[in-house]
Amino acid sequence: MSNQKLPDIKQNFSEWYNEIVFKAELADHAPVRGCIVIRPYGWQLWENIKTVLDARIKATGHQNCSFPLLIPESFIKREAKHIEGFSPELAVVTHAGGKKLEEPLVVRPTSETIIHYMFAQWIKSWRDLPMKVNQWCSVVRWEMRARPFLRTSEFNWQEGHTAHATYEEALLEAKMMMQEYVNLAQNYLAIPVIVGRKSESEKFAGADLTYTYESFMQDGKALQMGTSHLLSQNFAVSFDMKFQNQAGEMAYPHLTSWCGATTRLIGAIIAVHGDQNGLVLPPKIAPVQVIIVPIAAKLGDAVWQKALEIKANLEKIGISTQFDERDHLRPGAKFYEWELKGVPLRLEIGPKDLEQNQVVIAERLNSTKENLLIHDLVTAVPAKLQLMHDQMFAAAKGRLQAMWHKIDKLSEFGNQLEENAGLYQTGWCLDGECEIKLKTYKATIRCLLDTGEFKNCFACDKPSKSDVIIGKAY
Amino acid sequence: MSNQKLPDIKQNFSEWYNEIVFKAELADHAPVRGCIVIRPYGWQLWENIKTVLDARIKATGHQNCSFPLLIPESFIKREAKHIEGFSPELAVVTHAGGKKLEEPLVVRPTSETIIHYMFAQWIKSWRDLPMKVNQWCSVVRWEMRARPFLRTSEFNWQEGHTAHATYEEALLEAKMMMQEYVNLAQNYLAIPVIVGRKSESEKFAGADLTYTYESFMQDGKALQMGTSHLLSQNFAVSFDMKFQNQAGEMAYPHLTSWCGATTRLIGAIIAVHGDQNGLVLPPKIAPVQVIIVPIAAKLGDAVWQKALEIKANLEKIGISTQFDERDHLRPGAKFYEWELKGVPLRLEIGPKDLEQNQVVIAERLNSTKENLLIHDLVTAVPAKLQLMHDQMFAAAKGRLQAMWHKIDKLSEFGNQLEENAGLYQTGWCLDGECEIKLKTYKATIRCLLDTGEFKNCFACDKPSKSDVIIGKAY
Repeated sequence: MSNQKLPDIKQNFSEWYNEIVFKAELADHAPVRGCIVIRPYGWQLWENIKTVLDARIKATGHQNCSFPLLIPESFIKREAKHIEGFSPELAVVTHAGGKKLEEPLVVRPTSETIIHYMFAQWIKSWRDLPMKVNQWCSVVRWEMRARPFLRTSEFNWQEGHTAHATYEEALLEAKMMMQEYVNLAQNYLAIPVIVGRKSESEKFAGADLTYTYESFMQDGKALQMGTSHLLSQNFAVSFDMKFQNQAGEMAYPHLTSWCGATTRLIGAIIAVHGDQNGLVLPPKIAPVQVIIVPIAAKLGDAVWQKALEIKANLEKIGISTQFDERDHLRPGAKFYEWELKGVPLRLEIGPKDLEQNQVVIAERLNSTKENLLIHDLVTAVPAKLQLMHDQMFAAAKGRLQAMWHKIDKLSEFGNQLEENAGLYQTGWCLDGECEIKLKTYKATIRCLLDTGEFKNCFACDKPSKSDVIIGKAY
Repeated sequence: MSNQKLPDIKQNFSEWYNEIVFKAELADHAPVRGCIVIRPYGWQLWENIKTVLDARIKATGHQNCSFPLLIPESFIKREAKHIEGFSPELAVVTHAGGKKLEEPLVVRPTSETIIHYMFAQWIKSWRDLPMKVNQWCSVVRWEMRARPFLRTSEFNWQEGHTAHATYEEALLEAKMMMQEYVNLAQNYLAIPVIVGRKSESEKFAGADLTYTYESFMQDGKALQMGTSHLLSQNFAVSFDMKFQNQAGEMAYPHLTSWCGATTRLIGAIIAVHGDQNGLVLPPKIAPVQVIIVPIAAKLGDAVWQKALEIKANLEKIGISTQFDERDHLRPGAKFYEWELKGVPLRLEIGPKDLEQNQVVIAERLNSTKENLLIHDLVTAVPAKLQLMHDQMFAAAKGRLQAMWHKIDKLSEFGNQLEENAGLYQTGWCLDGECEIKLKTYKATIRCLLDTGEFKNCFACDKPSKSDVIIGKAY
């Protein structure tokens, strides 16, 4: 790992982002357009995110399963808006087993169509409802402007798919899963988010209603973290999915899908929390929560033994701990590297510390250092990790609020949008003609809020029907 | 679920297999050639297998990561034998993002090539070795004769890939991971296996040496469970992967890959343990270890409450327990269904049982029933599950031994091979000309053993160089 400084995070956020991804060994460029290789440090982060959310998905009554990667092209075409939305991004298998296929297969960009095809066979009676499944997999959407984690031709995600007897129940499901995503973001990733609905033009291809949760990166760019869709009966009609309801009549179920956790979340973590020294990883999901660096120690000596003992004691209480035993690096180089990699806590231990039964504990977030009795570590470390989580969330929230502007008219905030990115809360009449005027600023309506602070539309000045958040998407 | 009887497992094993997969809701046909949908019950089985092995993969020093699904066609062609082996099975993406690609991409049939391309960039010095990574993903190999779990065009697996400074270390790694697979099979899936080397004609395309572990289904067909390969330097040369060794010289690392856990293992579980009443799932990885069926009980009454209490107590000690609260099915129908699904233990509880503070406990394996005090369940259930594991392993081993024949000459066992499948242990001169004679019987050399019981080759009668196991593969 080279010791060259990272680009200035304030001046060149975009370059800083690109460099830290590779320097921290989260990912590497792949020899396939728009794709990355997710390296062990990045993948462990994803596994930790997955573990948290998967437990919640199961606790809320969903079951995991696995649907095919390749989908007949005709399936994608069944729901008219769906094919319109996804067509430009598809990767298509035309040959297999040495022959040209009779019908091309698309590499799944999302799995609604094939899952609904199966739902149509499984759902016959109201007793089969609700049907609630989820899969963890990767999907492919061809990207011309890729960026590691934030936008890649292949990415990993979960996609939940459910069918319900009533509209109300489906709506409740779509909302509930959005709440689970917010819980993940705020309570585990320490990322404050804004939740709202997408506009007609921004919603999922084929959905009735799309909920989104959005965060903002340190350069003021908006980032869609994930979405939850009320598909209602559109896809059910396309796939002839009918069930006999309790009254004995045939009816179409109401569907949802929700794809709120993707490897993009790793990009959000990098972009929301990072600083000039590198990553700052949320303590609850950091692959390494504590790194122990020995000072002036040798394999097997007293310091070495004590470090291993501390590691074992922390692991016993569920703290992911590593001991940096490399003998060709000086402590300073190790400090630099683990700071770059955003490890929440670093313990330093040398002969003098051992004499005093203490270690030096350094916090990544505020770069503070203090001495701590070894005996106290098993209580102090979990407390410090929790505190660091709270501080990270508060700091991120402070940054979000600092870039949150409330402005009445496009003519007023147009100039600002050009200069400063950030959030612009305003009112909207819901007319697409007004929404399209944001194109000049390369901005979009990120979401519609339930609040009603603004009385008039930002563009046409007619009465506002919904507050909205406007921003420039990454 | 229909109550129609399963085909006779002794007379029509193949039909029995096909029906039980669908009836037990492990999987369903997918609308894509050779593919299946793995339903929640089947997928939970896979997740449980994965959890066991993933912990061992990490404990033995490997790290998970994620490489792209799509691989440039030219990569597959770099290692001559590799492309020769995989070419007929490839699914090829020729179009993406609405355009014809300059170079086609293949959907990974296995990831050696793209991983070695990355290894070549990461491995520069002996300090970077060993490099030990693994990924859990799905791969595609176009199948003309698919069979659920046993042979599908897409299947899920893990693939481990490592690079080492020396041949000896790589050999040790390939052997160690094979031992992990044997541990998984025998100690978790209750499947006795035979371990050996593949012949030159059967080894992995591009490998120096392939270890395999094989099981035998109840109809006497051989099933390759998984393999571990010593690739040595072939791929390293193809991908120009060089490192500076401790002496300061440039050298090629020695590589391994091991792909021993695939969704085929679910097929093995079905085929090795099933009986006339359906699945018999290994207790340690069964998605549902205990099913509680209430008798003459109603929502919220005393029996119902007690059943939920028993469920909670069993879950507290880590037993996966379900309570069958469906009110439109009679107990008999529930018994039938859970037997079909192979749940190891069934608890029945009704008003009379409650009076006596007992339940009826029924074991899937031997269809025995007994009364047990509720108070004793938390000790009796884990003990019964362990016992059932041991009994299943012993029973499967007994069946394996019963179909294990030792015969000297092809002329002698040729007739038998035609009539009875099973294992035929004999001697072999290592000559491919002799191996090819097995084609008449649709049999293959499953593996070479380390034993030396046989002195002459089964075909040419020249001195044997290795004992072999011959069988008919599924």
